Amino acid sequence: MKILSYSSVAPTRFEGGSARGVAGRVVIGKDDGAEHFCMRVFELAPEGHTPAHAHAWEHEIFVHAGSGEAFADGQWHSLDPGTVLFIPAGKEHQIRNTGKNTLVFVCLIPAGVPEL
Amino acid sequence: MKILSYSSVAPTRFEGGSARGVAGRVVIGKDDGAEHFCMRVFELAPEGHTPAHAHAWEHEIFVHAGSGEAFADGQWHSLDPGTVLFIPAGKEHQIRNTGKNTLVFVCLIPAGVPEL
Repeated sequence: MKILSYSSVAPTRFEGGSARGVAGRVVIGKDDGAEHFCMRVFELAPEGHTPAHAHAWEHEIFVHAGSGEAFADGQWHSLDPGTVLFIPAGKEHQIRNTGKNTLVFVCLIPAGVPEL
Repeated sequence: MKILSYSSVAPTRFEGGSARGVAGRVVIGKDDGAEHFCMRVFELAPEGHTPAHAHAWEHEIFVHAGSGEAFADGQWHSLDPGTVLFIPAGKEHQIRNTGKNTLVFVCLIPAGVPEL
């Protein structure tokens, strides 16, 4: 059993190139004995964004705080607290913060792929 | 791609027996093509609780709103927004709302087991 506040995990920061203001944390992963899927928590600073990218595994996302937009299927979609987003494998996607506060979302991936 | 507010999904209510004030929703599952894991969102009303139970699959939990406690490893642990909880397969566990507001948490399970 593992219990912690996500913010107690040291973040990995992504800045420059096609990312801006991104802090990512693996909160449940293979080191915890999670054999099937991995939970990460991402914070995007105001005006921050992830890279536009695609990969061979899916995302299951839950928006915890803040507001932003997700690009998928050729358009931008609003993200607010409580928004759920499923991005199937292979789909190009990007997330950006369009608000004044930190955008916080949980993003899960299957086991066996890079955790962060 | 699927995007929605979790609250737009009709809840399944669990009341009576060993559950009280529980509303569960499958927000990403096999019907969406999610082949590896399933996202559910649970709301527990004030004084609500899940059953104390154990099963052969793990939980990965993220607390979105409210406050409560989780029983695992023989004791109660505080839950607040941003708390992450990993309950390995086979561990007895229970969650209860100890606050005045609705306790909302995301709870993921591997594919191939009952989704709710």
